[in-house]
Amino acid sequence: MVEAKIEFIPEGSITSPQGFHAGATYAGIKKKVKDGLDLGILFSEAPCVATALFTTNRIKAAPVVLSQQRLQEGRARAVVVNSGCANAFTGEQGLADAAEMADLVAKGIGISPEEVLVASTGVIGLPLPMKLIREGIDQIILSADGGHELARAMMTTDTVPKETAVAVSAGESRFTIGGVAKGSGMIHPNLATLFCFLTTDAVMDLDFLKLALRKAVDISFNMVSIDGDTSPNDMVVLMANGLVGNDPIWQGSEQAEVFQQALDQVCIYLAESIASDGEGASKLIEVTVSGAPGVAEAKLAARTIVSSPLVKAAVHGEDPNWGRIMSAVGRSGVEVVESKIDLYLGNICLVKSGCPLAFDKQEVVKALGDSKVLINLQLNLGTATATAWGCDLSEEYVTINSQYTT
Amino acid sequence: MVEAKIEFIPEGSITSPQGFHAGATYAGIKKKVKDGLDLGILFSEAPCVATALFTTNRIKAAPVVLSQQRLQEGRARAVVVNSGCANAFTGEQGLADAAEMADLVAKGIGISPEEVLVASTGVIGLPLPMKLIREGIDQIILSADGGHELARAMMTTDTVPKETAVAVSAGESRFTIGGVAKGSGMIHPNLATLFCFLTTDAVMDLDFLKLALRKAVDISFNMVSIDGDTSPNDMVVLMANGLVGNDPIWQGSEQAEVFQQALDQVCIYLAESIASDGEGASKLIEVTVSGAPGVAEAKLAARTIVSSPLVKAAVHGEDPNWGRIMSAVGRSGVEVVESKIDLYLGNICLVKSGCPLAFDKQEVVKALGDSKVLINLQLNLGTATATAWGCDLSEEYVTINSQYTT
Repeated sequence: MVEAKIEFIPEGSITSPQGFHAGATYAGIKKKVKDGLDLGILFSEAPCVATALFTTNRIKAAPVVLSQQRLQEGRARAVVVNSGCANAFTGEQGLADAAEMADLVAKGIGISPEEVLVASTGVIGLPLPMKLIREGIDQIILSADGGHELARAMMTTDTVPKETAVAVSAGESRFTIGGVAKGSGMIHPNLATLFCFLTTDAVMDLDFLKLALRKAVDISFNMVSIDGDTSPNDMVVLMANGLVGNDPIWQGSEQAEVFQQALDQVCIYLAESIASDGEGASKLIEVTVSGAPGVAEAKLAARTIVSSPLVKAAVHGEDPNWGRIMSAVGRSGVEVVESKIDLYLGNICLVKSGCPLAFDKQEVVKALGDSKVLINLQLNLGTATATAWGCDLSEEYVTINSQYTT
Repeated sequence: MVEAKIEFIPEGSITSPQGFHAGATYAGIKKKVKDGLDLGILFSEAPCVATALFTTNRIKAAPVVLSQQRLQEGRARAVVVNSGCANAFTGEQGLADAAEMADLVAKGIGISPEEVLVASTGVIGLPLPMKLIREGIDQIILSADGGHELARAMMTTDTVPKETAVAVSAGESRFTIGGVAKGSGMIHPNLATLFCFLTTDAVMDLDFLKLALRKAVDISFNMVSIDGDTSPNDMVVLMANGLVGNDPIWQGSEQAEVFQQALDQVCIYLAESIASDGEGASKLIEVTVSGAPGVAEAKLAARTIVSSPLVKAAVHGEDPNWGRIMSAVGRSGVEVVESKIDLYLGNICLVKSGCPLAFDKQEVVKALGDSKVLINLQLNLGTATATAWGCDLSEEYVTINSQYTT
């Protein structure tokens, strides 16, 4: 591997890489306005190679269908995003509306509609308010520091925008990766999450770009669960405009490993941000399962624990009810041998070789009160490890979701 | 089929069939006492053929391991049950404690310990307080109308006991089936639920008894979900003491179909009771999926919808957010064609052939306010149907489960 450095950029955003511009407006699609933005555009001044991963939900939103078609050639130059309406379960009209959104953006910027992707998030089953969208798109002003605006325009029940960027030096190459994500409820991604856009100014080989995105998503967004509900609108897009003019990065090239590491870091940062800001969440839960027979088993066990409503509720109430963690791993379908299991909460060992240990209750309650609760389960059956992220289950989650459309 | 009548017995219980006796006491195992009972015994004055289904959780509680062994010969005569402590994840000591519970009951009644099953429910990972259990078993008085007491002794977060019985006449035969169940949280049965005991005074062939129980459980308890968490203690036991002296009922005999119908009715009644009384629940949700390509698909779709926290929260808040039902069926893994789907809430059609219909919001809110909310999804792809039961997700569910051990 070449000598490399990966540094997070203070206040980095999706427009930190060279040549990416963004902007947003309040078009009036969201009824309950937060931060006043609900429609945004991301644009690259140079053509990009691009790849994406989409939801595995069989009910696919119109913008997912459209963006999936347009990415078949591996090229894209702009994304238009709205919150407040998911344009999902909207039939032929939904597809026509998504196409019109792309057309309007293409005309405004002066590029081909085929280069524009569309993403929508919000209530399912309602038609897009196209009058508001037409007027809104006209008002958006793109700028090289517009990334923060785009991050706010994507939010629904999110309480904070989720964005970051890293500056990478790898041998002679210097490039930047930026990312923005949203997601707070209906989060149990299965290939992607609702949404994440990633940009880089590096020159990238498309095949490697696809591979790198899949790898990064598998250990980041695919390991987040807030409520077990996979959305019909999930998408993660990665666009590379090549403006730094480095030697192309392809699988096997010197910089490939560094690029992968940097992309992993951006995706994990954003995945953790999504989990921390889960609907009603007061803390992040990070579950690491090690000693599994294989990576698939480690992932399944970690995701099952972090998704268990009973584990999540116990963490919320700072209740040292660790038996629920054992019950969750037991039902995950993964091989377990009770007498081999070790369980740690942060640094506190609760179970060793299947034997519950006496613990200082106040110390355990304190660890459960941290803003990041670390659960570490060692199966002692193999060498594979995986980490999953989630959040506590609070009364507020229920309140938010019992009044979402009313 | 012979001429048959199946009638629910007013205030029927597990001791309604001839020759079954039960009793319970407060031993002090449960800290938060509700109805003052936490230890009970069920006993048949005649030997029984018996069969059971147990949890598929790989962490199996000690009483599950013990009862599973003892039922290998298809015989049992008594069950001892406690609430307040699950005796799960308790290692060798847990197995010894479960065996001692059975021994004490066997000695008290004067039967072989091999004929005694054990069931425990409550907190996972704590040892059984054997001193309290020894003293408690001594105090229990068995009687022919003790079924109601046993039902109360099994409750943890349950707010009401769940019990019923049916009187069956089939041609010349008269027999009774009784049942009692508990379960309020950690309910997502996968072979059985935590707990159900069933009794009958009919003379039964063991092979048919096994078959009948599996069939009844598959369409009742296995179609209930409260929170997606499968417990390590789940068990459903069916005991037949033959005291009415009918011709043995075997697969293919005249009464087999009536017995199956009666057993199904008892199990569905108890499954619905469990779903209605889910932790924090204010209403029952019944989801029927029809027009599926196969029964497995219909079941998977119905269970996925009834388990979705977002559907459950919307029903709780009486929010007509039907898009979440579509999202849930879309992620269930079952084949769906958006343009073929019909969706009904009670009698109100919300979606026809994939097209959202205009609806009277007040009427929909009213239907969501019923104590039993009926969701009917027609896939229009085949002829298979399945029904699943669950409950709404309330703030109270979180409150209960964030303070379970503290």
